[in-house]
Amino acid sequence: AAPEAPAAASAPKFTGMTEFVGTAIGDTIGLVIANVDPSLHEKMKLDPKFRSIGILGARTGAGPHIMAADEAVKATNTEIVTIELARDTKGGAGHGSLIIFGAEEVSDARRAVEVALKELSRTFGDVYGNDAGHIELQYTARASYAINKAFGAPVGKAFGLIVGAPAAIGVLMSDVAVKTANVELVGYASPGGGTSYSNEVIIMITGDSGAVRQAVLAAKDAGKKLLEAMAGPAPSSTTPYI
Amino acid sequence: AAPEAPAAASAPKFTGMTEFVGTAIGDTIGLVIANVDPSLHEKMKLDPKFRSIGILGARTGAGPHIMAADEAVKATNTEIVTIELARDTKGGAGHGSLIIFGAEEVSDARRAVEVALKELSRTFGDVYGNDAGHIELQYTARASYAINKAFGAPVGKAFGLIVGAPAAIGVLMSDVAVKTANVELVGYASPGGGTSYSNEVIIMITGDSGAVRQAVLAAKDAGKKLLEAMAGPAPSSTTPYI
Amino acid sequence: AAPEAPAAASAPKFTGMTEFVGTAIGDTIGLVIANVDPSLHEKMKLDPKFRSIGILGARTGAGPHIMAADEAVKATNTEIVTIELARDTKGGAGHGSLIIFGAEEVSDARRAVEVALKELSRTFGDVYGNDAGHIELQYTARASYAINKAFGAPVGKAFGLIVGAPAAIGVLMSDVAVKTANVELVGYASPGGGTSYSNEVIIMITGDSGAVRQAVLAAKDAGKKLLEAMAGPAPSSTTPYI
Repeated sequence: AAPEAPAAASAPKFTGMTEFVGTAIGDTIGLVIANVDPSLHEKMKLDPKFRSIGILGARTGAGPHIMAADEAVKATNTEIVTIELARDTKGGAGHGSLIIFGAEEVSDARRAVEVALKELSRTFGDVYGNDAGHIELQYTARASYAINKAFGAPVGKAFGLIVGAPAAIGVLMSDVAVKTANVELVGYASPGGGTSYSNEVIIMITGDSGAVRQAVLAAKDAGKKLLEAMAGPAPSSTTPYI
Repeated sequence: AAPEAPAAASAPKFTGMTEFVGTAIGDTIGLVIANVDPSLHEKMKLDPKFRSIGILGARTGAGPHIMAADEAVKATNTEIVTIELARDTKGGAGHGSLIIFGAEEVSDARRAVEVALKELSRTFGDVYGNDAGHIELQYTARASYAINKAFGAPVGKAFGLIVGAPAAIGVLMSDVAVKTANVELVGYASPGGGTSYSNEVIIMITGDSGAVRQAVLAAKDAGKKLLEAMAGPAPSSTTPYI
Repeated sequence: AAPEAPAAASAPKFTGMTEFVGTAIGDTIGLVIANVDPSLHEKMKLDPKFRSIGILGARTGAGPHIMAADEAVKATNTEIVTIELARDTKGGAGHGSLIIFGAEEVSDARRAVEVALKELSRTFGDVYGNDAGHIELQYTARASYAINKAFGAPVGKAFGLIVGAPAAIGVLMSDVAVKTANVELVGYASPGGGTSYSNEVIIMITGDSGAVRQAVLAAKDAGKKLLEAMAGPAPSSTTPYI
């Protein structure tokens, strides 16, 4: 499983920098800037109302980070400013990510990053991988603004994310999910559209919380069987949560 | 050669899923869906006439898969629906792929995937790699619909594909190819256009079958010399076929 | 540091090809074509005035190659024709590159490639990496046409390039740089815009040479601290030059 397993976070080292918040699984780093320089603020196209930003960036993983950011905006006085998905080389067939929180006070930005970093050990729980690829499942009973920003899913409703790589696996997982329960298919992304050319098929579903969860779990079972048929055991990155 | 060599297929494991067809070299998996769910069918923008799809997906390789799919559509009652190239991290400087066959009957979709999986050990034959990069050559005396879909090359005519990575090698291979024989240059792709930002220069040629084959072989000789100058021996992934 | 360290160039092997110029760090190869085939010339959209081209391509690194090419155009009778950035898998979170020099005489193209290959051991000097990512700093007191072509920075003025990966690090380095000294922010690139979906934030700065250098060095200090907090020592690829 080594080539596809996200790096666990080592103990954050002392940097002596006030901007440093911490690190987490997936080569993730959390930072804050109390007063973004005006010239940079403009080039980054930040909303003028935010002096401060929180920064969550990772080599491996986008779904776990978006889900963690979603909890962070629920828990803090911040907004999601941008979510960008890199075609990184650490995550195997998948994405890395850059998520920026906007806040009026740096203490809010810091708190959002802290919450997100802490959530990541949970949201990596249903990422399963082996040498042939990975699958990822995410579920929340109530989507907030990060999920809305990233996937266009409605705020306040149950949300499920289903990812399979190589993309072929994701196609089948998608079909299994939408046949399993009465859910609404919000989006479909594939190497040629909606991803940063990653080797994934990704669907986003919404609906009744029981139905969404059931669809996600059925997709998980199908995806794990296929990954295992390709390259043997495909363990969870941390501990399954769904 | 390890980092650039595609993974050989291990014996396909039993999955208990009727959708599973098999696996092949390059972390390739073949699947079928007998009746694609209507909501997914719509999001995938599939032609309504196809109830069934065959799915061929890989972490490593796009050219070999397109060539194999081309043989599969010749041999079966299917059509190529989509060909997508992922910027994967398993193929070194190159692409992974997702190819979808459309069929009215699932037995046809299954047969297409079976043919394609079987062809891959041949079509990987002129993929040569080492730690510095890879070159790929493909040739057919008669192009069919997968080649037409992917590269815009005329159906029924001889077709050659020439790939070099890093892209610098591909530029020189291209020049050697078109100077060697009287062939028509159908297309040119590079990191900045026509690829999914892969580090490859790719040309597609058509013309008289003898001329196309001669151009492809001359490009191979030049490309192998350059790869070998960078990082030593660059062996075939399987057995050369051209 | 292994996964992120660019490959050192081994002694270039004899290829027997007049087009081969040499190799360098970062899986870089240098080539020339004396008379580009007319059909390829057209597909590559080369300016008709250039019969000859020099080709500089790499698996790892774009900044070092652009800076090296910049010195090459200063020193030779050539122009920069294209600069393309691949989303390669060798450079970890970063880019590979393909740079083409145009020349009327092949001897000029060859000389440009030779100069660029030689410069690379210097321009890789302020690339620092470890398992978590990399940072890159570039500085010149006088930008020339490669820098202008790639980044839109003014010719003849001091120029600095600041890169951080994962992208989160680059955001903070950028803020530190523009706050340190009175420099002009020429450009900002991130995974979602201006890169080939690489996991980097990149800024380009111009201004008084002392100010640009000071800003670049401050960004370096911040970036190194963050990389080291993530994954320990982050050494230079060769020898720092700024």
